[in-house]
Amino acid sequence: MQVDASGPYAVVTPKVVDELRSIVGERNVLWDDPEALEPYSHDEIPDPEYAGAPEVVVAPGSAEEIAAIMKLANRERIPVTPRGAGSGLSGGAVPIYGGILLRSDRMNRILEIDTDNMMVVVEPGVITAEINERLEGTGLFYAGYPMSLESCAIGGNVAENAGGGKAVKYGVTGRYVLGLEVVTPTGRIVEFGGKLIKDVTGYNFVQLMIGSEGTLGIFTKIVLRLSPKPRASVDLLCLFPDPHTAIALVPKIMSAGGITPTAIEFIDQGSFRQACRYLNETLPYEDAGAVLILTVDGPDADQCEREYDTIGRICEENGALQIYVADNATTSERIWRVRRNIAESYAQISPHQANEDLVVPPARIPDLLEGMETIAERYGIFIPAYGHAGDGNIHTRLVKNPDWSIERWKETLPTILGELYDLTAGLGGRLSGEHGIGHKRKPYMSTFVSREYMDLMRSVKRAFDPKAILNPGKIFDTMVHDEVSTDPLSPA
Amino acid sequence: MQVDASGPYAVVTPKVVDELRSIVGERNVLWDDPEALEPYSHDEIPDPEYAGAPEVVVAPGSAEEIAAIMKLANRERIPVTPRGAGSGLSGGAVPIYGGILLRSDRMNRILEIDTDNMMVVVEPGVITAEINERLEGTGLFYAGYPMSLESCAIGGNVAENAGGGKAVKYGVTGRYVLGLEVVTPTGRIVEFGGKLIKDVTGYNFVQLMIGSEGTLGIFTKIVLRLSPKPRASVDLLCLFPDPHTAIALVPKIMSAGGITPTAIEFIDQGSFRQACRYLNETLPYEDAGAVLILTVDGPDADQCEREYDTIGRICEENGALQIYVADNATTSERIWRVRRNIAESYAQISPHQANEDLVVPPARIPDLLEGMETIAERYGIFIPAYGHAGDGNIHTRLVKNPDWSIERWKETLPTILGELYDLTAGLGGRLSGEHGIGHKRKPYMSTFVSREYMDLMRSVKRAFDPKAILNPGKIFDTMVHDEVSTDPLSPA
Repeated sequence: MQVDASGPYAVVTPKVVDELRSIVGERNVLWDDPEALEPYSHDEIPDPEYAGAPEVVVAPGSAEEIAAIMKLANRERIPVTPRGAGSGLSGGAVPIYGGILLRSDRMNRILEIDTDNMMVVVEPGVITAEINERLEGTGLFYAGYPMSLESCAIGGNVAENAGGGKAVKYGVTGRYVLGLEVVTPTGRIVEFGGKLIKDVTGYNFVQLMIGSEGTLGIFTKIVLRLSPKPRASVDLLCLFPDPHTAIALVPKIMSAGGITPTAIEFIDQGSFRQACRYLNETLPYEDAGAVLILTVDGPDADQCEREYDTIGRICEENGALQIYVADNATTSERIWRVRRNIAESYAQISPHQANEDLVVPPARIPDLLEGMETIAERYGIFIPAYGHAGDGNIHTRLVKNPDWSIERWKETLPTILGELYDLTAGLGGRLSGEHGIGHKRKPYMSTFVSREYMDLMRSVKRAFDPKAILNPGKIFDTMVHDEVSTDPLSPA
Repeated sequence: MQVDASGPYAVVTPKVVDELRSIVGERNVLWDDPEALEPYSHDEIPDPEYAGAPEVVVAPGSAEEIAAIMKLANRERIPVTPRGAGSGLSGGAVPIYGGILLRSDRMNRILEIDTDNMMVVVEPGVITAEINERLEGTGLFYAGYPMSLESCAIGGNVAENAGGGKAVKYGVTGRYVLGLEVVTPTGRIVEFGGKLIKDVTGYNFVQLMIGSEGTLGIFTKIVLRLSPKPRASVDLLCLFPDPHTAIALVPKIMSAGGITPTAIEFIDQGSFRQACRYLNETLPYEDAGAVLILTVDGPDADQCEREYDTIGRICEENGALQIYVADNATTSERIWRVRRNIAESYAQISPHQANEDLVVPPARIPDLLEGMETIAERYGIFIPAYGHAGDGNIHTRLVKNPDWSIERWKETLPTILGELYDLTAGLGGRLSGEHGIGHKRKPYMSTFVSREYMDLMRSVKRAFDPKAILNPGKIFDTMVHDEVSTDPLSPA
């Protein structure tokens, strides 16, 4: 979706660029250089139709500079798009209306490691994996990290409420965010929450900000809660005859076993075969109708052993075909590389894929898989399913039939996606579990949420951003010009 | 604070009462009977100055009935106050502008126990303890319950984001709420979230609703996540020479021990002595400068034992005077009844108390206690401190000096509270950790949050409730009449 920069917004003039330079310093502004701007026109979605170039890229160094930029943007009515590491999968950081793109890489400091309170204070541009590297030796760790932690920025994690492979036990990013310093769309610096584990002093704007995809405010400081670092961890690879048997096991482990595993990952038959073949992996993949990878962690190896013994017993009693235990780094890596290489293995069939992030009530996963198989067969394409079974969050890639032309694929894909989304909604599911809506999935929101929900989101957006200049066109369409009211905040 | 029912609102006329009767049925409306209305004019705050009687009490039986009431209330501009079990401690359910009070006791069904998804669906009027009674035998439990679980309603827990004694390990109510059916102030029925463990499909209105004290919507269905029920639990009572030594231990248990206890409760010297004497308890209370009660739970007794061994060792290495282990119901009860009887024991000194719910960064608790002692000495009153040390949430009761007249107490209390709040804010703390703001603490909000935060709350309130009729005057002052805009939602 290429959107021209006109619409309801003003263009970035040389005068505006001069003002931006005076706010952040000349060398922190990129302008009038299409080649330099190009990397900021897309995220990790490969399809060019979701790209959109900024008019100017700015790297602010402080909340005060961002506040000044937002005041300028409000005055001129120029859209502003905040960007972390650009590792998103829904277009959340793509400036589809042009305007100003805010880089976060100058705000990349870990400001404080507060072991007494078991918290860290970070700037939004910190690469997520860095936090745990810096915590080495403290006995503490940040538990909210997503699978792309080596490349994503913590600000983006908060904006998207990133999930990941350990969310069954540890929850998603939102559980660990205790405080935020935020620049509002109108350019005020506000503190929400703080170094507080509990707080009911006013509306919970911390949690409203989390997952709002940069449409309600720009984070400038983030207070994260830390957890005791597990001393031991064991992975189990369990093969099952079919998805029903595998998924039915998940609540049994927790209710009959009393155990909350760290991870419960699911891989369907096709994905497991495809990845094993791709990796020349000798696991007996032909026998497996479905696979679970389970991880347990804890304060010592004894406890892990007791927990995986219990899980192993429950798996055996409930139809598992085979169970492999990985209690060292080498065997553990052998298991996880199968999971990690699914996407890559399907790229061998066709690079044309739609990457989806469905979420359903966990017990409905088998129904979702069955429906996906029906759709795949009807259209003659691949729809592999894998992901976070403990959370009901199934990733899939709709993979083009290699015999189809690209035109046929592009023409048919919206229909297939429509069917997949109808199926998901019918199971009580939603459009995205952890990747976000952005502008990529925006057209499908109405399949999942009511008009009233959409209206309330627009009202709240208006309450924070009366001129609709902060990351417009994400989650829902930007409000038309005459809907926009005046600033609800009195002048600063 | 007695507020007359005039102000910006219309009064409840006989015609309105007739309409209410036609919506919910004649016997579900209480009107024109001051004695019958009286119980609905206060919550658990004993002071009469926080009371306010409703004009009419209505017991709706469905979301549809509540939606009809809200449409009527909007048309007539009559305030509506939702009420759970009336066990609140901040006046959240007190109808200070009169109008309609909504009882939730007809909506008290556990609608579904879904063990496959490990969730329950409940109506707001369910008494919280009932949920776990109904889950007996499933191996699952609802972990978000507050200390008043025998008497409070789950709808109120969600509205206040209730905490409780197990929040160190299990978190507060908000962690367990996955979905809400909500009637908006303008009378629409909206679904937020669902049976979904992860969901980033739109703004997180579930979490915005939680702790909003009934000012943004009325819950009619609540989806709660369940957890594996611990099979074993052990309590430790640890005596320390002083608060600093006790509080410094908390992060050590987690970082050096790798353990997250279920509960870490703190009792200061005065409270421990007072409660022990009151109960004729023979624990060596004279020696203890500070006390921690720690609970660990887990899937089996072995694991609990290893964890409390580790904790005991860390306590001993870090200055604990004595450690008592309670691994059965009798000794456990002996420990907990000290904690539970603190308030009652101070009532012996004077029934005139201000019940406070401060929260600070956990490591700042010793500074808070020191400051509280200084204030108590300066004014010659008691300020006992106890509560949830693991969360930084300290409860206190400012207890009248028995020699003072009530007039002197009432005159001086606001000054003392002001000093206490300034102290708390200076430590990075907030006004309430789990009891809420209501109208009781509203005058002190500006000590803790910025004008921008207040303005944003009012803007969001307006987005949901343009006529300011749902639970007005809670958290912040009701907007004056001419500030109120038109309904942002198009007509239903």
